[in-house]
Amino acid sequence: MSISKLPTEIHGFDLIACGGLPEGRATLIAGSSGSAKTVFAAQFLAAGIMERREPGVFVTFEETPEDLRSNFLGLGWDIASWEAAGLWAFVDVSPEPGEPPIFAGGYDLGALMARVQYAVKKVGARRLVLDALGGVFSQFPDETTVRAELFRLTRSLRGLGVTALITAERGEEYGAVSRYGVEEFVSDNVMILRNVLDEEVRRRTLEILKFRGTDHLKGEWPFTIVPGRGIVAIPLAALQLKQKSSDVR
Amino acid sequence: MSISKLPTEIHGFDLIACGGLPEGRATLIAGSSGSAKTVFAAQFLAAGIMERREPGVFVTFEETPEDLRSNFLGLGWDIASWEAAGLWAFVDVSPEPGEPPIFAGGYDLGALMARVQYAVKKVGARRLVLDALGGVFSQFPDETTVRAELFRLTRSLRGLGVTALITAERGEEYGAVSRYGVEEFVSDNVMILRNVLDEEVRRRTLEILKFRGTDHLKGEWPFTIVPGRGIVAIPLAALQLKQKSSDVR
Amino acid sequence: MSISKLPTEIHGFDLIACGGLPEGRATLIAGSSGSAKTVFAAQFLAAGIMERREPGVFVTFEETPEDLRSNFLGLGWDIASWEAAGLWAFVDVSPEPGEPPIFAGGYDLGALMARVQYAVKKVGARRLVLDALGGVFSQFPDETTVRAELFRLTRSLRGLGVTALITAERGEEYGAVSRYGVEEFVSDNVMILRNVLDEEVRRRTLEILKFRGTDHLKGEWPFTIVPGRGIVAIPLAALQLKQKSSDVR
Amino acid sequence: MSISKLPTEIHGFDLIACGGLPEGRATLIAGSSGSAKTVFAAQFLAAGIMERREPGVFVTFEETPEDLRSNFLGLGWDIASWEAAGLWAFVDVSPEPGEPPIFAGGYDLGALMARVQYAVKKVGARRLVLDALGGVFSQFPDETTVRAELFRLTRSLRGLGVTALITAERGEEYGAVSRYGVEEFVSDNVMILRNVLDEEVRRRTLEILKFRGTDHLKGEWPFTIVPGRGIVAIPLAALQLKQKSSDVR
Amino acid sequence: MSISKLPTEIHGFDLIACGGLPEGRATLIAGSSGSAKTVFAAQFLAAGIMERREPGVFVTFEETPEDLRSNFLGLGWDIASWEAAGLWAFVDVSPEPGEPPIFAGGYDLGALMARVQYAVKKVGARRLVLDALGGVFSQFPDETTVRAELFRLTRSLRGLGVTALITAERGEEYGAVSRYGVEEFVSDNVMILRNVLDEEVRRRTLEILKFRGTDHLKGEWPFTIVPGRGIVAIPLAALQLKQKSSDVR
Amino acid sequence: MSISKLPTEIHGFDLIACGGLPEGRATLIAGSSGSAKTVFAAQFLAAGIMERREPGVFVTFEETPEDLRSNFLGLGWDIASWEAAGLWAFVDVSPEPGEPPIFAGGYDLGALMARVQYAVKKVGARRLVLDALGGVFSQFPDETTVRAELFRLTRSLRGLGVTALITAERGEEYGAVSRYGVEEFVSDNVMILRNVLDEEVRRRTLEILKFRGTDHLKGEWPFTIVPGRGIVAIPLAALQLKQKSSDVR
Ligand SMILES: Nc1ncnc2c1ncn2[C@@H]1O[C@H](COP(=O)(O)OP(=O)(O)OP(=O)(O)O)[C@@H](O)[C@H]1O
Ligand SMILES: Nc1ncnc2c1ncn2[C@@H]1O[C@H](COP(=O)(O)OP(=O)(O)OP(=O)(O)O)[C@@H](O)[C@H]1O
Ligand SMILES: Nc1ncnc2c1ncn2[C@@H]1O[C@H](COP(=O)(O)OP(=O)(O)OP(=O)(O)O)[C@@H](O)[C@H]1O
Ligand SMILES: Nc1ncnc2c1ncn2[C@@H]1O[C@H](COP(=O)(O)OP(=O)(O)OP(=O)(O)O)[C@@H](O)[C@H]1O
Ligand SMILES: Nc1ncnc2c1ncn2[C@@H]1O[C@H](COP(=O)(O)OP(=O)(O)OP(=O)(O)O)[C@@H](O)[C@H]1O
Ligand SMILES: Nc1ncnc2c1ncn2[C@@H]1O[C@H](COP(=O)(O)OP(=O)(O)OP(=O)(O)O)[C@@H](O)[C@H]1O
Ligand SMILES: [Mg+2]
Ligand SMILES: [Mg+2]
Ligand SMILES: [Mg+2]
Ligand SMILES: [Mg+2]
Ligand SMILES: [Mg+2]
Ligand SMILES: [Mg+2]
Repeated sequence: MSISKLPTEIHGFDLIACGGLPEGRATLIAGSSGSAKTVFAAQFLAAGIMERREPGVFVTFEETPEDLRSNFLGLGWDIASWEAAGLWAFVDVSPEPGEPPIFAGGYDLGALMARVQYAVKKVGARRLVLDALGGVFSQFPDETTVRAELFRLTRSLRGLGVTALITAERGEEYGAVSRYGVEEFVSDNVMILRNVLDEEVRRRTLEILKFRGTDHLKGEWPFTIVPGRGIVAIPLAALQLKQKSSDVR
Repeated sequence: MSISKLPTEIHGFDLIACGGLPEGRATLIAGSSGSAKTVFAAQFLAAGIMERREPGVFVTFEETPEDLRSNFLGLGWDIASWEAAGLWAFVDVSPEPGEPPIFAGGYDLGALMARVQYAVKKVGARRLVLDALGGVFSQFPDETTVRAELFRLTRSLRGLGVTALITAERGEEYGAVSRYGVEEFVSDNVMILRNVLDEEVRRRTLEILKFRGTDHLKGEWPFTIVPGRGIVAIPLAALQLKQKSSDVR
Repeated sequence: MSISKLPTEIHGFDLIACGGLPEGRATLIAGSSGSAKTVFAAQFLAAGIMERREPGVFVTFEETPEDLRSNFLGLGWDIASWEAAGLWAFVDVSPEPGEPPIFAGGYDLGALMARVQYAVKKVGARRLVLDALGGVFSQFPDETTVRAELFRLTRSLRGLGVTALITAERGEEYGAVSRYGVEEFVSDNVMILRNVLDEEVRRRTLEILKFRGTDHLKGEWPFTIVPGRGIVAIPLAALQLKQKSSDVR
Repeated sequence: MSISKLPTEIHGFDLIACGGLPEGRATLIAGSSGSAKTVFAAQFLAAGIMERREPGVFVTFEETPEDLRSNFLGLGWDIASWEAAGLWAFVDVSPEPGEPPIFAGGYDLGALMARVQYAVKKVGARRLVLDALGGVFSQFPDETTVRAELFRLTRSLRGLGVTALITAERGEEYGAVSRYGVEEFVSDNVMILRNVLDEEVRRRTLEILKFRGTDHLKGEWPFTIVPGRGIVAIPLAALQLKQKSSDVR
Repeated sequence: MSISKLPTEIHGFDLIACGGLPEGRATLIAGSSGSAKTVFAAQFLAAGIMERREPGVFVTFEETPEDLRSNFLGLGWDIASWEAAGLWAFVDVSPEPGEPPIFAGGYDLGALMARVQYAVKKVGARRLVLDALGGVFSQFPDETTVRAELFRLTRSLRGLGVTALITAERGEEYGAVSRYGVEEFVSDNVMILRNVLDEEVRRRTLEILKFRGTDHLKGEWPFTIVPGRGIVAIPLAALQLKQKSSDVR
Repeated sequence: MSISKLPTEIHGFDLIACGGLPEGRATLIAGSSGSAKTVFAAQFLAAGIMERREPGVFVTFEETPEDLRSNFLGLGWDIASWEAAGLWAFVDVSPEPGEPPIFAGGYDLGALMARVQYAVKKVGARRLVLDALGGVFSQFPDETTVRAELFRLTRSLRGLGVTALITAERGEEYGAVSRYGVEEFVSDNVMILRNVLDEEVRRRTLEILKFRGTDHLKGEWPFTIVPGRGIVAIPLAALQLKQKSSDVR
């Protein structure tokens, strides 16, 4: 069976992705701090709910559900109401206040997967977000373990029948794709969000680096975050837009 | 509840921040040595007192209160008088003369938080500064611990109901945001102060890198330090100002 | 006996390779994530089957045969039918779901070679692919072991009488050829696939870095991936093509 | 009490420093080898003696007093005569000939401070130099210890009531301010001396990076070393002077 | 006795070398993978046989004699016939198939030298090649051992009365001369072969970095590999040739 | 007593050095492989003998006296005859053939100094060369030991009453002055020899980085090695000479 695509309904993005995210698979989003990884991931769920009534699950590793609910009000998404309607579920693996964000006895994939599976079943989720693996990865002793654990995780997600987004950290806007330099190799699909400082002005772009087995537009595409609306990607040839996008928020 | 902003009353800054600092949360300020982190942090309290009579607490990790009082006289702030008036309180965790700046038995977050809480209550503080975490972080064995401890700290601050500023060190003006490359990921809000050497001239800029869940102007904005007044930020398009700002102090 | 070449039948490539890949030897392909290493390797087998009815064996270290079958439908290759016809065989050494991709008791070359040899005999393979050694290499303690094991592996392949392709990871598009900086020295033949970001546009190129004992064109050559067809290399002088190739997918 | 300044009487420097060095505090001078750290430090004492009859103490960690006396004759400073007149005192902590420059049983701050205090009292010193801490720092196991020890040292100096200069090493002319990347953060005041190679010509500049709590001119200022006179700083806008200063010695 | 030169008879090279390689000494050739180190070394022997009937010995550390014989047929050198005629001898220290390329019980210089001496005597060799030391060096624990062992090796070769070529690996085309950064310092004579990627085109150059005690032309000189002939160096001023050499194979 | 200079009589150099090398002190020469450190050092002795009949001692750590005698015949220096005339003496601390260049039981400064002192007395040497310390330094465990040992060595040399040259290795032509980044700080005087590759052409320059306590010309100065004559430095403004010097050998 060939690879099909799930339309994200994120403004402009599905054009760049030639239809959407590879369905039933996981896509890794790498980006620097503030590059809008969490906004993109939340909008993936929000747009699914608003445009296609597809329920979603948001697994949060550092920010609390409470914080996320407040943060996204300003983008027009009333997550609490979706939770009430059984369309959005949080799996909260953020550390307890006063506890270090270190998994007791090490990171336990089995326990995590059980909670995720339960939530996915409960809401009948078609979309899944894991935000952000940075804190988990940093507990692993070396890049071989990062590689192995990310591999196990993406394999395990396959069994859930959902289309997943996983966010991960990177330090520099150009250069190594991901923090440990191995995450992209074990992922089927990789996107990069950038927040580039260029002559004292910040410009946001997104790029699909790899979609295994399927097509997508290449290169960097400008996007902006509109209050009350969220991410709006601009699927026009990037070079022509350069001057215009530089004063985009 | 959506994110609200606390006006800092730092000249020009609230325009760039679209209202001020995210209220009730902590903002991390990263900057090289001499980039004005301590001036910015002190002015956050001073302006709060002078313009809005909001009391503040200043937790100092390296400079003594006595030194800070002298240092800020030249900017027109009579901290001692504010202390007398119950508007400013120091929490002095700078090492004793003759003692190494290493926390006996390791850094004890609980003890620190107790002292901070006491001071916040005593003056009824709405603003809190922690300056500077560099010496504390450097005692941690690895970046995982830096990450975990900063996470715990910012979580603990939430309970105090104050708007907080935390300062941290960085080495180079461009490149990695923070010394350990993880501090920015666990912070809700991140600002950068720069002191850039450009053709033998220094130019100061500030940038808001990330405000989770709320809006802000993007990119670098020039600022200057005026004797008797403190930081004056210039919220005009940075590029046009370039020639002018280069001869700014 | 002088070195002979096996025509790959990959569009345009055999011109650049002055006839094809060195017959009976192994060629190392290094490339970043998404640089089309797996596409190139699969097309080496697919084109052999379609154009010359030469059977092939595909040893997969990370992606499952099932995934690979789906991935390549979109390029027009019905691998399942070839498997049924005895023209394509998978050797699946990808980790079990739920198991870490770490070889129990270390990587066992002997056991791997036995399975490969069996598959090669069964289909009468003339072409062999090993995709991708990154995960295996990352388990070795140092570059000396990477070097020694890759050396042993390529030596062992000699005995099989096949023309082989081995894929390996690299991080940056320019700079060190391979991840550990030694893989290229112990390989008889080395190719590089690049996916270069140039003014926000991606451009794909391939280069033959070394063919021991035989001729090949030098430098980088543009290529594109055409849905339903696969890799199409463009064996024209690269510089003239530059503008044109930049809008190539 | 606000920060006051002690005029150094180094030609041109006090204009750049808006009056001189912060009185009663320590200033760190970082510079590459040959950047004139020792010349600047010695001239701080020499000018104090010649222009204001302020006695000074020079603590030397590597060069012997004997060598320093010879070295500075060529700049017109007869140190021996000032020693005789009770205006200059050396504290010689340079290693014994034949002994390694490693402090037996580790670096003992207490013993050093006792000797410094004795010398300061004896000549009634208002100025103090410590040249150079590189050899001491290199014995410390890590940057945390460098940070802690430098902090203790500058705190201890406060008790002496003198204005102090401490010299430290740096490798590259641009980039990290100091060798360990932490020295500048624990210092109240930081200056950089540069000896830049620019198109095969060397150009000397000085820069005040930070004066906590007080004003100074920003950016790099050219200076030259005049035989028989010492350092002459040129407090004119640096850019205009560029061509002229490049043939300055 | 002053240094004399042995003409290599490699086309064009002896002009650049002001006569040839320093006679009776060893020359180190450093180059990246595919830079033609093995071709140059083999041609040193082949040209000696063809032009001056000087027998040679080729010590091979990784490629088998069988592979080398095939590889060089395409350059017109029938090594097997020279072996039969007693003009060429291999010393095969390549690892056994199935064995790791690690010397049992460590690298044994004495045993190696005995085998080399035997071969040198048998054919009456005047020329000697050791290709390639990369695999041997990588077994040494640190650069001090690399340095010491290379030193011992070149000293031992002196006793054989031959002119020797030793090949070693380097990673980048510019920057550090050799992999460990010490090999060049203990060698009397050092050459660099480069295979530079310049605007998507590869250009080959050779450079003599150091001939202790004797003269040579300085800088980079273009060369090409002509099928049926081997290396042809072009001893004309490099800069003028630049455009022309870029389309050279 | 002020610093006096010993004219080296190396062509052109004494002008750049404002008279010569600081008398009675040691000067460190850092340079890459082939940068002419050994030639400069030998010429310092040879010119002293030829122009001023000042005897000299050459301590050689890696090359044998025999090799050095041959190497310098081509520059017109008959070292053997000077040895016979009691004007030149070697101290040979190069390793025995077959022995590793590692000092048994560690590097023994006392034993070395005894041999040097004996040779200095025997010929009544006024000039001393130590070539090259790279191999010795590489045996030390860390840069602190390199620093301490170099310090001890230069202190010990003071007692001999000679003007000394010490050569040391560096990797890159620009950037860090010396291999360990500390050698220059503990040396009174530092020179750099460069062999810069600039658009495929090599250009040699020398620079005096630091002469403690005395004057010298600043910046890089071109030099060339003339067969039969040795180093000829060109004390004209470097920039004007640039085109001309680029075709200099
Ligand atoms: N309501 C809003 N209106 C406008 N912009 C917003 C709004 N909410 C968020 N943003 C923008 O999005 C940014 C935050 O993005 P986000 O939290 O997704 O980044 P991230 O990549 O997840 O960062 P981190 O790795 O630190 O978690 C803010 O800095 C702000 O610029
Ligand atoms: N009264 C003043 N008048 C003018 N400028 C001042 C005054 N006080 C401080 N400054 C400026 O502010 C700088 C100090 O800034 P500040 O101490 O806030 O830096 P910082 O980022 O906290 O550095 P560190 O990390 O070393 O603590 C001084 O170097 C000076 O340029
Ligand atoms: N059907 C298709 N149509 C168009 N392009 C495709 C198709 N299938 C794959 N591609 C392109 O090929 C890329 C994947 O290449 P491939 O999987 O071979 O990379 P890789 O070098 O093996 O990466 P990794 O190291 O991560 O395994 C996709 O990102 C996509 O751009
Ligand atoms: N009498 C003099 N006349 C002219 N220039 C002099 C004189 N004395 C010293 N100099 C210059 O000053 C330089 C030495 O400076 P100094 O010893 O202060 O450097 P430094 O920064 O202390 O170096 P290090 O870190 O190696 O101790 C000399 O290299 C020389 O260029
Ligand atoms: N018969 C031939 N005709 C044309 N070119 C050839 C021929 N044989 C070899 N070459 C060229 O020489 C290159 C191989 O060079 P060689 O094996 O000497 O490199 P090397 O520096 O020894 O590499 P390594 O370090 O990987 O051993 C080939 O990549 C090819 O470009
Ligand atoms: N007789 C000569 N004629 C011309 N040039 C010569 C002569 N002898 C030496 N040279 C030049 O001097 C260079 C050798 O310089 P030298 O041995 O002094 O370098 P080095 O800096 O000591 O290197 P290393 O660190 O490897 O010992 C030779 O490469 C050559 O270019
Ligand atoms: Mg986030
Ligand atoms: Mg501060
Ligand atoms: Mg792949
Ligand atoms: Mg000094
Ligand atoms: Mg080779
Ligand atoms: Mg030498």
